[in-house]
Amino acid sequence: MNSGDTAWVLVSAALVLLMTPGVAFFYGGMVRTKSVLNMIMMSVGAMGVVGVLWVLFGYSMAFGNDVGAGLLGDPGEFLGLAGLLDPKSLHGTIPSLVFVAFQAMFAIITVALISGAIADRARFGPWLLFAGLWATIVYFPVAHWVFAFDTGDGKTVGGWIANQLKAIDFAGGTAVHINAGAAGLALALVLGKRLGWPREPMKPHNLTLVMLGAALLWFGWFGFNSGSALAADSAAAVTMVNTLVATCAAMLAWLVVERMRDGKPTTLGAASGIVAGLVAITPACNAVTPIGALAIGAITGVLCALAIGLKYRFGFDDSLDVVGVHLVGGFSGTVLIGFFASAAAPAGVDGLFYGGGADQLWRQAVGALAVLAFSFVLSTVIGLAISKTIGFRADREHEAGGIDEAEHAESAYQFGGIGTGRSGFARRTAPGPPERAGSAKVTEGSSS
Amino acid sequence: MNSGDTAWVLVSAALVLLMTPGVAFFYGGMVRTKSVLNMIMMSVGAMGVVGVLWVLFGYSMAFGNDVGAGLLGDPGEFLGLAGLLDPKSLHGTIPSLVFVAFQAMFAIITVALISGAIADRARFGPWLLFAGLWATIVYFPVAHWVFAFDTGDGKTVGGWIANQLKAIDFAGGTAVHINAGAAGLALALVLGKRLGWPREPMKPHNLTLVMLGAALLWFGWFGFNSGSALAADSAAAVTMVNTLVATCAAMLAWLVVERMRDGKPTTLGAASGIVAGLVAITPACNAVTPIGALAIGAITGVLCALAIGLKYRFGFDDSLDVVGVHLVGGFSGTVLIGFFASAAAPAGVDGLFYGGGADQLWRQAVGALAVLAFSFVLSTVIGLAISKTIGFRADREHEAGGIDEAEHAESAYQFGGIGTGRSGFARRTAPGPPERAGSAKVTEGSSS
Amino acid sequence: MNSGDTAWVLVSAALVLLMTPGVAFFYGGMVRTKSVLNMIMMSVGAMGVVGVLWVLFGYSMAFGNDVGAGLLGDPGEFLGLAGLLDPKSLHGTIPSLVFVAFQAMFAIITVALISGAIADRARFGPWLLFAGLWATIVYFPVAHWVFAFDTGDGKTVGGWIANQLKAIDFAGGTAVHINAGAAGLALALVLGKRLGWPREPMKPHNLTLVMLGAALLWFGWFGFNSGSALAADSAAAVTMVNTLVATCAAMLAWLVVERMRDGKPTTLGAASGIVAGLVAITPACNAVTPIGALAIGAITGVLCALAIGLKYRFGFDDSLDVVGVHLVGGFSGTVLIGFFASAAAPAGVDGLFYGGGADQLWRQAVGALAVLAFSFVLSTVIGLAISKTIGFRADREHEAGGIDEAEHAESAYQFGGIGTGRSGFARRTAPGPPERAGSAKVTEGSSS
Repeated sequence: MNSGDTAWVLVSAALVLLMTPGVAFFYGGMVRTKSVLNMIMMSVGAMGVVGVLWVLFGYSMAFGNDVGAGLLGDPGEFLGLAGLLDPKSLHGTIPSLVFVAFQAMFAIITVALISGAIADRARFGPWLLFAGLWATIVYFPVAHWVFAFDTGDGKTVGGWIANQLKAIDFAGGTAVHINAGAAGLALALVLGKRLGWPREPMKPHNLTLVMLGAALLWFGWFGFNSGSALAADSAAAVTMVNTLVATCAAMLAWLVVERMRDGKPTTLGAASGIVAGLVAITPACNAVTPIGALAIGAITGVLCALAIGLKYRFGFDDSLDVVGVHLVGGFSGTVLIGFFASAAAPAGVDGLFYGGGADQLWRQAVGALAVLAFSFVLSTVIGLAISKTIGFRADREHEAGGIDEAEHAESAYQFGGIGTGRSGFARRTAPGPPERAGSAKVTEGSSS
Repeated sequence: MNSGDTAWVLVSAALVLLMTPGVAFFYGGMVRTKSVLNMIMMSVGAMGVVGVLWVLFGYSMAFGNDVGAGLLGDPGEFLGLAGLLDPKSLHGTIPSLVFVAFQAMFAIITVALISGAIADRARFGPWLLFAGLWATIVYFPVAHWVFAFDTGDGKTVGGWIANQLKAIDFAGGTAVHINAGAAGLALALVLGKRLGWPREPMKPHNLTLVMLGAALLWFGWFGFNSGSALAADSAAAVTMVNTLVATCAAMLAWLVVERMRDGKPTTLGAASGIVAGLVAITPACNAVTPIGALAIGAITGVLCALAIGLKYRFGFDDSLDVVGVHLVGGFSGTVLIGFFASAAAPAGVDGLFYGGGADQLWRQAVGALAVLAFSFVLSTVIGLAISKTIGFRADREHEAGGIDEAEHAESAYQFGGIGTGRSGFARRTAPGPPERAGSAKVTEGSSS
Repeated sequence: MNSGDTAWVLVSAALVLLMTPGVAFFYGGMVRTKSVLNMIMMSVGAMGVVGVLWVLFGYSMAFGNDVGAGLLGDPGEFLGLAGLLDPKSLHGTIPSLVFVAFQAMFAIITVALISGAIADRARFGPWLLFAGLWATIVYFPVAHWVFAFDTGDGKTVGGWIANQLKAIDFAGGTAVHINAGAAGLALALVLGKRLGWPREPMKPHNLTLVMLGAALLWFGWFGFNSGSALAADSAAAVTMVNTLVATCAAMLAWLVVERMRDGKPTTLGAASGIVAGLVAITPACNAVTPIGALAIGAITGVLCALAIGLKYRFGFDDSLDVVGVHLVGGFSGTVLIGFFASAAAPAGVDGLFYGGGADQLWRQAVGALAVLAFSFVLSTVIGLAISKTIGFRADREHEAGGIDEAEHAESAYQFGGIGTGRSGFARRTAPGPPERAGSAKVTEGSSS
């Protein structure tokens, strides 16, 4: 056991935990005031459901011994994590449960990312059901495919993408981003467009909240990427520098596209470019030099800035651009490894531009497409099954009136009396319900 | 000295520091716009006062050699922390000052937690006085009772709950949460109800801020709980997984109670459930398996969701549910150790459900009740002493008009001109005071 | 390679990254609603530009071998960071790229800090140009002057302030704070006063955002200061305790000044006092005892609280007090080392009050004044060069109408329909542009 490695992965787990609230605020700021809470609750609810499933059987499904063909881990192997509390149970140089905690956060955030595709119109209960089913049927297996590890006693645990195909996906370009992006596309199609989309303007209601989310994501992503080294070592250092410079480049690239296309670089564009860069470098951060990272970031920034227009062309309401950023960005980063990989980086593989030929490139493309197809098909099936049984989409009236009131009996802000303290609530004399009794009947607003 | 352990506790100290702003936002979002700044300032002010006292004599009172009967550390032992700068001064495997920094954050946040009970109506100066007195008279001694440590040369430093009673409280279920919760109850009674409570609705003014606070708390709590292992080791790993799963379970449990009782799961409920779960697992995280943690989280989530109704029944205005969440949650977590402790966990003790009999259970109950009683009595005395001398509660008029203006000459938000940039401030021509000159006479608001 | 040290500096790099969004929110909350996005974008844009330059040649200019006289590192030495990916390339006990990542964040935040001096009136493109030029011409050289290190093979890399002058600046009182503060003063003079300043009130539009920024800064600053030890050791521990207590003392001192001068302690004052304390202890944190840190914090808190009035006396519109907090605070902390340094602290030097005479004092003063003069002169030149060519300041009309709309085609908040969900956007039937098409023509606001 190495205490420095353990310290770094403990911290990284905490950093990745923070990313899901980061997603909640990033998405929450982008919707209108009437649905910000529901947006946040989809992320937060996913934390609850997936966290519990992970401890019960998810970790076993993802990281248990392969039950055959590299498709799934043995769900019964670490049921309830029994046995892993033993101080002698290690994962490489760190205690097993540190790895369990770190990977739990990956499962959680992947599910949360999907929710951006169905902003403003999903019912909360069915979303929680989807979160649990999708984690179980899609995420846990795909994590098994992609994240392999050496047990130290000559055995390798992990699935076909890592062990047979030998595609490089350091921290989850396929398992997390393509996976979530494809699921987002599926749900956007299953649930259909929002009322009024794309005719009505649906501007972000709070861009400071969007940027707060992006900032927490960037911060946490250092744990996501560099923590995936599972050690405080040189590989972690390379991934951190690459994560920084790819993100900087993608943000600038997005702003340049906006400047050229729309005339002005926007805050929403900067925040989106940050996330696109982080997505792109996720699979690649241990496989490229900082100059390669800069290139991948810049290319992906341009691609994603253009890709977010696809939904208008093809008419699917991927409300907060899960497809444009996570599917396209994840695909870009995964495939560009085939071009920019350098043997000077920890992964030790040369890509097409570094004299390595097209060998790694096709492996990357196959891995990316496999996860895309698997996730899209199964997400559609799960989404349809929920829609056709208990229903997934909110009532038309609830959507129009605001899903926060309809699903959570709340509204995000009560700014009445701002700057006019003396004429605010205090003058009211009519009796009212206590503040915690979240009755659906309380619809009184700040301006009433 | 172990650099990995040191790295982890250094990080943990920073994480716990962030929790107090987390409390500030969690509480600040729950009050009305006219008192959000005062709510934040009570937390921030506590940071200033308690941080300074900790360095001067607080650390000595809590962790100095026992002056007798396990009740107090020698206040003069580390006055001003002299002597602890020596690189050879260690606390286990980490430099002494790392432990000093880590524990400073515990003292700070415990005081900040109390403030939620007296939202909207406490004067700022008297609050700072209370913070200093309470830290000195209540927190420093109780920390001494609860947090013991082996000095490495065969001597144990620490007080009666840890050494004689042998109650388990890993990270502060008694010293932090029961302690703060009981003090909150005392102050709520001393200061009395808010004007209009419980007749008037006093809805949270900003639920995104509440959730931001909860997110920062969850993130920081990994340092709080897993940092308390004082090492980057297997025990830290167990506590991290337990902290995750208990919190997930408590959040879901709270949402289920709301769904059944009120019809809708709320964002405020999710945020509160997160905190309740974190509170409950704090004392228990090194004593139970992940399944035990899941059970403690779920049970406490239900208990706290029900307990926040007590204030309406008994008529005390614990404004932001310090009692319902911290006192009840801390008590629940501390006592449930007696049932769910498992010798498979680092603490190595079996509770009632794991064949260990009721021995640990009564120790837990005695420890919890002792801190509750001590804190409640002394907090009442300190609160009354301040009330009867310089006064603690704001004037009736100031409370009605908003305590932010009255105590801080500010209002939190100046959203005038939103979306109407061209008609905003810029058109004003009348001269005005400079923005920093926080004169109490400036009451002009955004809508004027 | 020491994994514990590496873990700590990896974390510290992430912590310092988060500080720049912290600056963005700290500054963003202080401006009016019509320019919050531009304020945030100046920080975020600096991240993009400086992050890329750092990887390309900035690290080489700052930390390459000296090209002569201690004035500059060899820009070609680590071009594109080639060669530093080798796992055997170390910086002390940590991989070289960990140090590269950590120091990248210093370059970024120093540039971001400047932006507070020119709130509300700078065009975004010219700002990005300034950021790149200033980092190259001012920051990279000054970082070389100040931050020296022992390469382990008997050679010392670093410039004249560290090696010849032997001034103490542990984490950047000169290189970061005096540097940014002097540049802020230069730009405030070059761009001139805001329309209406100082006649019109320009109150902070969101003090919760200000405090969020201050909280993220405080949290991240533990990485900034204690990470500068480049090891998880006793020196890191001393700097952490000093960073805590100096900040607490400065905040209390600022509130006391406000209470005495204006009648009320404010939230803006607390947030500013926090930053002032952090600035002051930055150069000094390894050179003083906790009692010395307390004194430096308290003195600087008073000085800065008074210094922010200078702009009204001398008529320069340093909008968000970059001079009053960073220049004055950085100067105070740097020079006070000459008085309060104690040989008991890691730096091992006694100052005037500890029997060391005035030797260290003049070294501190010379270092501080040198950076001040260099930065002020070159920043003025760069600022004027941009102003006279492409122009730096926004049009008068754009400034009046709000620079967010003019520069970014956005407004931060769309709170229309708050508390009145049913009468909000949903009732609109007129077709509108899609939410992402950030056309400058979209000026529709929430209240229209």
